[in-house]
Formats: sequence, structure tokens, C-alpha cells
Amino acid sequence: MAPAPSSASPHAPLSGWSITLEEREARNAHEAGVVWFTGYSGAGKSTLAATLQRRLFDRGLLATLLDGDEVRRGLCRDLGFSSRDREESIRRAGEVASLFYQAGHIALCAFISPYARDRRLARSLVPDGRFFEVYVRCPLEVCRQRDPHGLYAKALRGEIAEFTGVSSPYEPPQHPELVADTEAESVEAIVAAILERLADLLQPPAAGAGRPRE
Amino acid sequence: MAPAPSSASPHAPLSGWSITLEEREARNAHEAGVVWFTGYSGAGKSTLAATLQRRLFDRGLLATLLDGDEVRRGLCRDLGFSSRDREESIRRAGEVASLFYQAGHIALCAFISPYARDRRLARSLVPDGRFFEVYVRCPLEVCRQRDPHGLYAKALRGEIAEFTGVSSPYEPPQHPELVADTEAESVEAIVAAILERLADLLQPPAAGAGRPRE
Repeated sequence: MAPAPSSASPHAPLSGWSITLEEREARNAHEAGVVWFTGYSGAGKSTLAATLQRRLFDRGLLATLLDGDEVRRGLCRDLGFSSRDREESIRRAGEVASLFYQAGHIALCAFISPYARDRRLARSLVPDGRFFEVYVRCPLEVCRQRDPHGLYAKALRGEIAEFTGVSSPYEPPQHPELVADTEAESVEAIVAAILERLADLLQPPAAGAGRPRE
Repeated sequence: MAPAPSSASPHAPLSGWSITLEEREARNAHEAGVVWFTGYSGAGKSTLAATLQRRLFDRGLLATLLDGDEVRRGLCRDLGFSSRDREESIRRAGEVASLFYQAGHIALCAFISPYARDRRLARSLVPDGRFFEVYVRCPLEVCRQRDPHGLYAKALRGEIAEFTGVSSPYEPPQHPELVADTEAESVEAIVAAILERLADLLQPPAAGAGRPRE
């Protein structure tokens, strides 16, 4: 039997079937982007990202938090803390951030992401000007005291090999879009600074291009 | 130096910082869900998913297509076609679908996903009633003729080991939410049937709970 005239053959894709980022941005009345928080465990990445997520949501924007701890329980549950596994973990995180970017979101990524090379890869997945690296800087001794997930204690007991700040290096960003000093500045002050840095993104991409949401 | 009173210590998370799915659904005025298209390569999964995505977008809903071919170029670029790699590929796809679900989207997933076990895992990541399996049924000989990506030809030449429908089995869903017969039915008719099946999802979750989008 021959296929029906408009059967679902992939040979004849319907025009207009895919949705461009431009269409999504016009709908959302803001641009998409990736805000990437990097720093030691305990530096405050998740707190900052979650607070920023709340601010963006309350403004009516599409924002999604991708958190290292959460991703370790799901997408990256097959990976540990070795440098090879960290590389793969950050690669996947970058790809997922890129998917959310393409879906029109501002993706807020909170990952230790200790290696500059891996962060560069994540940055390369979205266009110039749409990736904002926030270096969440906090002295290692303060992070170790906070130890919110007990990971430093585990690493010091030798239960985690190659843990950043204990037995594995952290490469600070050389040219981050923003440096957040969580020992000296308040969450609110830092989030306000990030919002200011994102200002261009938060505007409608082109006047009149948006279709009002009913 | 002691941390500032409201420094970004994860010991003192701010209340209300995380955004619940209920908040997102109220904002979006529709519920989140996962529509999972399974079937042979060439059966029409991507065409159906992309057409459905367009319909949902045009209604003002949040919908995102996750396509096997696209994911193979990004998130799963380290994986091939072996049964072990397929399993891992579908595991990751299910996790990403779940992330989009949590972000309030209707995730449209087009993956051959030949094994019932892997599809069950993807289903288990979202609550009951939020996962819709669409069995995209098409005779293998028709799919082989369509061969939209030249994969059957490659597999028949022995260049892909364990290719579904050539050298690897496909386990048809036993209880899919919908069966789409792409040899007999038009894309539009199938998409209309899926929209009808999703009707509950497409309504505002609770009257008056939504905050109008400005």
C-alpha cells in the first residue's frame, strides 16, 4: 500500500514545523542565555542561582536552574568525581544548558566546573554575548567550614578521590563576566549586580516583534 | 573575617527561592508533561513531534522537541548504536525530558527507543498521567524505503552494528497511550488525535491560580 498523500514520511517535512529561537524570544519578550556559576563547593553557587531564578521568575521570565547536586542524582548518576568524570559531567551540563537556551530559557547553571577547558566548551555551545560566567569566589577555608554537603569531610577522610580544593585543583576563570565575592557581599547585592549585567538579555529582543501571550 | 549577615552561605537558604512546578503551571496556564514517540527509524516520529510542537506553540503553550538525531550530535555524542549505548542514550533523554517537565514544558521526545525497559524508566521519571507514549507504527519495509538518514543502508552494509529493524530487535509498546499508524493516517489526523488525548494537560491546572503574564 502506498503512503497516504500527507502521511508522516520524513521525506516531506511540513514547512514551519520547527520553532526558531527568535520566535520563542519574541513570545517570551526576553532573550535566552546561560548564566554559569563556577566555584568551590560551598562557595554559594546554588544559593545565588536559585535566588536569581526567583527574581527572574517573578519578573515573568523563563528561567531554569540546573544544579550540580541535582544533576548528579539524575543525568550524571553514572559519573563520579574523577577528572575524566567531571569533564563528562560538565560536557553534559553544557549540552543541557544549550537545549534550554534553544528553548528560550535563561539557564542558570551551578556547577563547581573546576577546569577552564570544560567551561570554555560550555560557553562555545551558545552564541557570543549569551554566556555569562560568574566566578563565585570564596576562600577555600570558608567553603570547607560551610561544607554544606559534607563533601570536604568525606574527601579529607579519603572517601572521595580527586575532590576540588582537597585533592584536585580549581582553575579560576581568567575573564569571567562577573566576580561574586560571597564572603564579603550579600546574596541580594550579588544578584542585583548579575541582573544589571544581564540587562540587555532581559529586554524584548525587538520592539513589536512579540506576540502577546493571551 | 566572618561572613556578612546575609552572605551566600548555603547554610541559610532563602525561603521561597526554589520555584515549584505548581507555580510554573499556574503561570503557563497549562500542565507539564512528556509525550514520548517510539518506533522504527523512518516511521515518522520527528515529523509528528515537530508538527505537534508547532500546534502547541501556536496555542501559546511551552513545548520543546527533543529529537534522537539532534541529541546524538550533542548530549549523546559519545554513544553509538549498541544496546548498551542505546540504553544509556534513552536514560539521558528521559532525564532531560524530566528536567523540561520540571521546568513546566510539554516535552516531545522522538527516539527509536526500542526497548520496553528503557521506555519504562523514562516513564518512571514523571508522575502518573503525565507521560504519554505514542507508538509510531509503520511497517519495517516502508521505513526502510523511506530511510531518511540513510541508516538502514549503512546497517545493511554492516557499517552500523545492532541497528533496530536490521540487526537488533524492536519491542513494541504493550499499552501505549496512543498508536499512530503513519502509513494509513495523515500527520494532521494523528496530531489532532494526540491533542485530544492531551486535553486535560492543556487546560489551566486550577481556575484562578494563574498569574496573568504581562
